[in-house]
Amino acid sequence: MFHRLRWFLLGPPLPTQQEHLERLSNPKALAVFSPDALSSIAYANQEIYLGLIVAGSAALALSFPISLAIVGLLIILSLSYFQTIQGYPTGGGSYIVARENLGTGFGLVAAAALLLDYLLTAAVSLSAAVAAISSAFPVLWNYRVLLALLFLILITLINLRGVRETGNLISVPVYGFILSYFALLAFGFFQIIRGDLVAVERSIIPAAQPLSLFLILHTFSTGCTALTGIEAISNGIPAFRPPEARNAGKTLIVMAVIMGGLFLGSIGLTQFLGVTAVPQETILSALARQVFGNGILHLIIQITTMGILVVAANTSFAGFPRVASILAKDRFLPRQFLALGDRLVFSNGILFLALACGFLIIIFNADSHRLVPLFAVGAFLAFLLSQTGMVFHWKRTREPGWQVKLFLNLIGAVLTGITLLVVGITKFLDGAWISILLIALLFFVFGKIRTHYEEVARQLSLQKQRPLPANANPNETLRIIIPVSGVHNGVVEAVRNAQSITSNICAVYVELEPGAGEKLAQKWQEWFPNITLEMVPSPYRSIVGPFLDYLDEKDREQHDGQLAAVLIPEFIPAKWWQSFLHNQTAWSIKLALLYRRRRLGFQRMIIDVPIHLQQ
Amino acid sequence: MFHRLRWFLLGPPLPTQQEHLERLSNPKALAVFSPDALSSIAYANQEIYLGLIVAGSAALALSFPISLAIVGLLIILSLSYFQTIQGYPTGGGSYIVARENLGTGFGLVAAAALLLDYLLTAAVSLSAAVAAISSAFPVLWNYRVLLALLFLILITLINLRGVRETGNLISVPVYGFILSYFALLAFGFFQIIRGDLVAVERSIIPAAQPLSLFLILHTFSTGCTALTGIEAISNGIPAFRPPEARNAGKTLIVMAVIMGGLFLGSIGLTQFLGVTAVPQETILSALARQVFGNGILHLIIQITTMGILVVAANTSFAGFPRVASILAKDRFLPRQFLALGDRLVFSNGILFLALACGFLIIIFNADSHRLVPLFAVGAFLAFLLSQTGMVFHWKRTREPGWQVKLFLNLIGAVLTGITLLVVGITKFLDGAWISILLIALLFFVFGKIRTHYEEVARQLSLQKQRPLPANANPNETLRIIIPVSGVHNGVVEAVRNAQSITSNICAVYVELEPGAGEKLAQKWQEWFPNITLEMVPSPYRSIVGPFLDYLDEKDREQHDGQLAAVLIPEFIPAKWWQSFLHNQTAWSIKLALLYRRRRLGFQRMIIDVPIHLQQ
Repeated sequence: MFHRLRWFLLGPPLPTQQEHLERLSNPKALAVFSPDALSSIAYANQEIYLGLIVAGSAALALSFPISLAIVGLLIILSLSYFQTIQGYPTGGGSYIVARENLGTGFGLVAAAALLLDYLLTAAVSLSAAVAAISSAFPVLWNYRVLLALLFLILITLINLRGVRETGNLISVPVYGFILSYFALLAFGFFQIIRGDLVAVERSIIPAAQPLSLFLILHTFSTGCTALTGIEAISNGIPAFRPPEARNAGKTLIVMAVIMGGLFLGSIGLTQFLGVTAVPQETILSALARQVFGNGILHLIIQITTMGILVVAANTSFAGFPRVASILAKDRFLPRQFLALGDRLVFSNGILFLALACGFLIIIFNADSHRLVPLFAVGAFLAFLLSQTGMVFHWKRTREPGWQVKLFLNLIGAVLTGITLLVVGITKFLDGAWISILLIALLFFVFGKIRTHYEEVARQLSLQKQRPLPANANPNETLRIIIPVSGVHNGVVEAVRNAQSITSNICAVYVELEPGAGEKLAQKWQEWFPNITLEMVPSPYRSIVGPFLDYLDEKDREQHDGQLAAVLIPEFIPAKWWQSFLHNQTAWSIKLALLYRRRRLGFQRMIIDVPIHLQQ
Repeated sequence: MFHRLRWFLLGPPLPTQQEHLERLSNPKALAVFSPDALSSIAYANQEIYLGLIVAGSAALALSFPISLAIVGLLIILSLSYFQTIQGYPTGGGSYIVARENLGTGFGLVAAAALLLDYLLTAAVSLSAAVAAISSAFPVLWNYRVLLALLFLILITLINLRGVRETGNLISVPVYGFILSYFALLAFGFFQIIRGDLVAVERSIIPAAQPLSLFLILHTFSTGCTALTGIEAISNGIPAFRPPEARNAGKTLIVMAVIMGGLFLGSIGLTQFLGVTAVPQETILSALARQVFGNGILHLIIQITTMGILVVAANTSFAGFPRVASILAKDRFLPRQFLALGDRLVFSNGILFLALACGFLIIIFNADSHRLVPLFAVGAFLAFLLSQTGMVFHWKRTREPGWQVKLFLNLIGAVLTGITLLVVGITKFLDGAWISILLIALLFFVFGKIRTHYEEVARQLSLQKQRPLPANANPNETLRIIIPVSGVHNGVVEAVRNAQSITSNICAVYVELEPGAGEKLAQKWQEWFPNITLEMVPSPYRSIVGPFLDYLDEKDREQHDGQLAAVLIPEFIPAKWWQSFLHNQTAWSIKLALLYRRRRLGFQRMIIDVPIHLQQ
């Protein structure tokens, strides 16, 4: 039943040999890696609008200059990452670049920033998607958490199916979005030229606070969320068809051009037409309503916006598991992130991201405006470290033309550094402090994990061992202890199994109620005349404690290093819910035996005899 | 650390012999068992007011006649339960009475109704407690869920400490409530007689709907929630000091008198003074404000109301675990409810109730008005079955004076039956349907659980077994299979342990990547020259599946019924969080071996060798 559902949702398992077939053509790669960057015009527009409107509708005139500054940054970043792709053709995420050129410490900071940013991208995009469709159908706003979670589940399932199918499914909304928005912009400008569409009298909204430099920088910071996701391609080079680096570079340039065009065009048109929005409607929705009127075309724009935002979350689902797997390979994250699932994707990374993202959506009530302040710090920290790393890279390799390349990356580093400072300071209280804290925490966790794995490797190394003698003396000294609760079929099975191992067997009964043991002792004598039954009193009604104390005492009595094993008959019910109906004594004893540190240095095995119940 | 916290919160463990010392004096028993019944005047008042106000302020004149009818029911029910206590001096909850006189089926219906009602009492009382304190400090209303959950945690901890301490702690708010309310009523009536307090002109509230018979019956139904909890004493007879039945009977009568006095007095005074309440304030708070003015006395009333409502939830924590343990003894509920904890209380029942109650509070947003419609069905169903059972009891036993007793219980049965019909019909759509559904579901679950336990007992019975022969042939045929992931200290430990059991050992390596096994095979030969290493290919990168297939295949080859054991070296990290850093392969294999049904009928043991890691 479960397996059939899984098969239906995720498809049949794929054998390992198929791995290298799962590559993406450039148009599909654009669809997979660009939605975050492209879709961010939706919430960046919105944040710039909300940031300036605080100082009154007159302040909105600043939105175009701010967007120009952001597009300037976009150009520099695109060129920088184009160079990164050439310098690291096998995949150069910020982590790898920073680690190789700046040292492990900075590499891990970049990795932490990147992981956090992927997570936030997913949460913000899904929340903004719900805002987009709610602008067309306001009633949906009440169900925004539910809706965002449904989108999340959909994206998770698609990604668990695997990369190639992801490319196919995702092309539709991405290209739909690009086409419909260019149509909107073209139609808008065409009408302006024809004189059919003129700037409306902007409704005057009074200023709540003065237009300060801080406000402008703050708005610039929130607008910079438009640039997040631009590094996705450089992380994902191995998913391109060969020649990977060339294809990835081309795709990056195409993406940057589309992105810049859409961003400048939409802000410019909004500005020229003097569009304002009521609460509960996004500014892009208001723009589309003004250009197309209140009909089917406006609805199409909202639906494609929603579509690309939903798949923008997909960028994270492509990127996060890859970065996590690289970190796991270097033993900074749990090994589980390294496992390729049935469908040749890093299933654990996908599932982890989905859970964390669902958590964020619930906590922040699926409100992208509350999530955005956490956002850009991580992205720009990763940018900065990656660019700085590239500067050192060129200096070290001194490839032909390295001076120009170094200079370009240096400009990138300086500009992203400045932006990072601005973002970190102006949004610190709004939520950037959470991001900084989380990055520091992740950095700390990476270190802890690495130390642990190294320590385990040291303990497991065979350096101090000699090869084993051909045969130790089998079962000469093995003792088996069986905890029993009565005389029944399960005990018979247990004893039968124990007898196949050794003849040194002892049963133990923990007496919860005084005197309960006597009746049992009689019956025991009848059935197992050759096996000792020991009684252990338990005045506080606990089974595990007295039993373990008994074992310790016995060990102390036997100074000959005799090996001991505890044999536990465990009932396995036929149906899952029946597990709740049995005292979990067997499990408690097993857990206690596993986790209790031994003081005396004796080894103690646990032998589990499963006894299957019918019905 | 955890143990010290536990000790501090719950106190030291108590030995089993102390059990019989934990008895309650009558005043303490009143404090433990009465708060539900007493406190319900708070929300019953409120519900009667809210029920009638729908038909306009003029309809409020009906509140006194309705309360008279409810007090009439109270008298009948008290007499009926007084008789129940005499008839069942060792504890006669509805379950026991119904089961013994009407058969198991009706007994289980009563039990289901009772359990549900205890749960709802806890949730409604805590929600009403928050409403009471919010009437004094309106800002608290915004934090009502949090507040209700804090109260819940407090009550849970107190109950986990044990019965005697419960009695001590709870006496303060219970007697505080009784005193302050009688003071309020006395002062109010005294002032009326002196002429200082006169009925104010009631602000006219227009009718939203006409005053129909349905509305009156509906209001009566919600008012009947005042009667829930009256059966608590009859369930708790064993907690009284001997002579238990006499003490319990006396306490019941005292409780009924206090309850009737407070209910009639408060409704009468409210009615006479023409009190109305604004939303966000309870009607009792408005009454206290009118009598005492807006000062410290009003605040005291609200605090004692809150206090008794919080401890009213305690009635459930005294009753629910007892009923659950009785059902578990009869094997209709999981055995865990039967376990007496460290502090001689049914800890599992307490914890289960706390979880379920927290869930209800969150779901219903701590709003007692939304919870009340689910409420009275269960209580009256239990009353009906209990009373009907008592009728049959007297008919069967024919004690001296049985005719009078039978007649009294018959009246009780008829009246509660009629009330149940009224409640079920008028509140069906408001939420009574949920209760009816849940009772049916519980009834079904009881049956399933009982059937399962009976089936297990049958399978474990020794009837078809013969006593075991003195000694089966030890380890002649035991094979041990060790799954390995490499050559390291853990494997050395595992092999050493295996050799103490048998010389027939085989290691298995599941090859996730083609060719990975060759290098291992060489190293293996060096270290374990005498032990075969078999390679199992895994094209789909799963470890468990191919390993189990290998085991099955081997079993099929060996037709001599040879016993097999799988030995698994399991790494136990030094710190709990490190468990996440190790592949859960050992656990997956163990779970699969435990739960996979064997097709061939061979027994397969699982031998666990814990390998403790340092640091």
